[in-house]
Amino acid sequence: MGSNHPDAQLYPHASGAALQMVKDHEAEQSLKLYSGWFCPFVQRVLIVLLEKNIPFKYIEVNPYHKPQSLLSLNPRGLVPTLQYANKPLYESTVICEFLEEAYPDSTPHLLPKDPYQRAYGRIWSDFVTSRIIPAFHRALQYQLHADGNSEAGFKEVKSELISKLREFTEAMDPEGPFFLGKEISMVDLIIAPWAVRLWVFDHFKGGLELGDEKWVERWGRWLKGIEKRESVVKSTSEREHYLPIYKRYADDVAQSELAKATRQGRGVP
Amino acid sequence: MGSNHPDAQLYPHASGAALQMVKDHEAEQSLKLYSGWFCPFVQRVLIVLLEKNIPFKYIEVNPYHKPQSLLSLNPRGLVPTLQYANKPLYESTVICEFLEEAYPDSTPHLLPKDPYQRAYGRIWSDFVTSRIIPAFHRALQYQLHADGNSEAGFKEVKSELISKLREFTEAMDPEGPFFLGKEISMVDLIIAPWAVRLWVFDHFKGGLELGDEKWVERWGRWLKGIEKRESVVKSTSEREHYLPIYKRYADDVAQSELAKATRQGRGVP
Repeated sequence: MGSNHPDAQLYPHASGAALQMVKDHEAEQSLKLYSGWFCPFVQRVLIVLLEKNIPFKYIEVNPYHKPQSLLSLNPRGLVPTLQYANKPLYESTVICEFLEEAYPDSTPHLLPKDPYQRAYGRIWSDFVTSRIIPAFHRALQYQLHADGNSEAGFKEVKSELISKLREFTEAMDPEGPFFLGKEISMVDLIIAPWAVRLWVFDHFKGGLELGDEKWVERWGRWLKGIEKRESVVKSTSEREHYLPIYKRYADDVAQSELAKATRQGRGVP
Repeated sequence: MGSNHPDAQLYPHASGAALQMVKDHEAEQSLKLYSGWFCPFVQRVLIVLLEKNIPFKYIEVNPYHKPQSLLSLNPRGLVPTLQYANKPLYESTVICEFLEEAYPDSTPHLLPKDPYQRAYGRIWSDFVTSRIIPAFHRALQYQLHADGNSEAGFKEVKSELISKLREFTEAMDPEGPFFLGKEISMVDLIIAPWAVRLWVFDHFKGGLELGDEKWVERWGRWLKGIEKRESVVKSTSEREHYLPIYKRYADDVAQSELAKATRQGRGVP
């Protein structure tokens, strides 16, 4: 892809609270995160690194001019890529579990000790990636005026997303505030980047209208805890810079792998 | 779905080596596996249970008359469902990792001690589910004489499957015989049920023709180790009983969730 590619106009680096976080992680470290400031999959990894206060170097990748150091590690050049002991790791959920296992003394522990609870969290982490994210993108990329589309179709894709959020919420510990209870855990962090991006529906798609059923209160309580979490705040840039990126999704002209997979009716690639 | 549903004609229980294995697991146990003898996702879990010699009760589920005990545990009634301490777990890869964590004294250990190696194995386990299985089903369910389809299209879906098998094989430890080296591990077991079903392409689709490039030797050596593994042998029924089930996939009339997702161009549901 050449630099005249329309996605190439994206803002070049983190801003707001995330800019300070990047500056705090400029120094050389053996652990390196190849990053894109706008990417929610990268944000998953950032949140885990910040939660556990693991030393790492942040490297911003221009997706249209990928550094050779990244391509040597990971020929597909995807972010997030983690460089650990000069070896690459990718797939955001794999990296998140890796960080938990490779830094066993860094707290908080993001996986509960009880094997059943760990597995329960993994079931719902999978649900985020396999159900919620595809539904998020189908609703966001829906084009009301495209051939074969309609208000009813739009309502259906929005309802699908809401029903997935409801199913997720109803699986939460009733007290909370977090998914598994009093303590934050991996599943909270795996969904967080999309939860704090739900404003895109208000901005571009007339809102989601969650209604006032019982689960909505629980969801709201959970979201409040996540939105103010330091790791989430510090990995979030200024909204104005997300806007042009999400406008391209809302207009269904984005060219990311996820955007294209959604147009083909597929899930997270 | 009523009992006149065409998939209802499937053979009602395990056969061959798997029938003996089922008989060996008829006694009451607190750990219960709700199973379908023909289901490759169930076979993943069975292989882990047998590898680690974990006591469990095998419960065959007729998918058209699901027992209330299963529906009470898991309202969607999917297999595999594992009943542990009277609580349900589902999603085959989650169950497999759970068994490793919940029975830490049962050997062999299926996840290496080194966190990087664990993560590396997880990347390739994900690859099996997100890349290889969808490609397996796109090739198996391809209908040469359907509208818009052609010999070239058929060749393309077969090539896609072969290229995924090649990518997987090239990620293996070069010596082996297993994926990560001398010892069997989770990633070997996660792909095993599809690896030992590749004969369906010979039977229904004129063969895959892997060719004679370097990776094919490594793949063959890996497959030989897997095919004769006791846990694999003991969880496999007689081929004649898989035939009518896979014929329905090969004719693209199967009604499983995976078959339907494949028709819609989606991945593993």
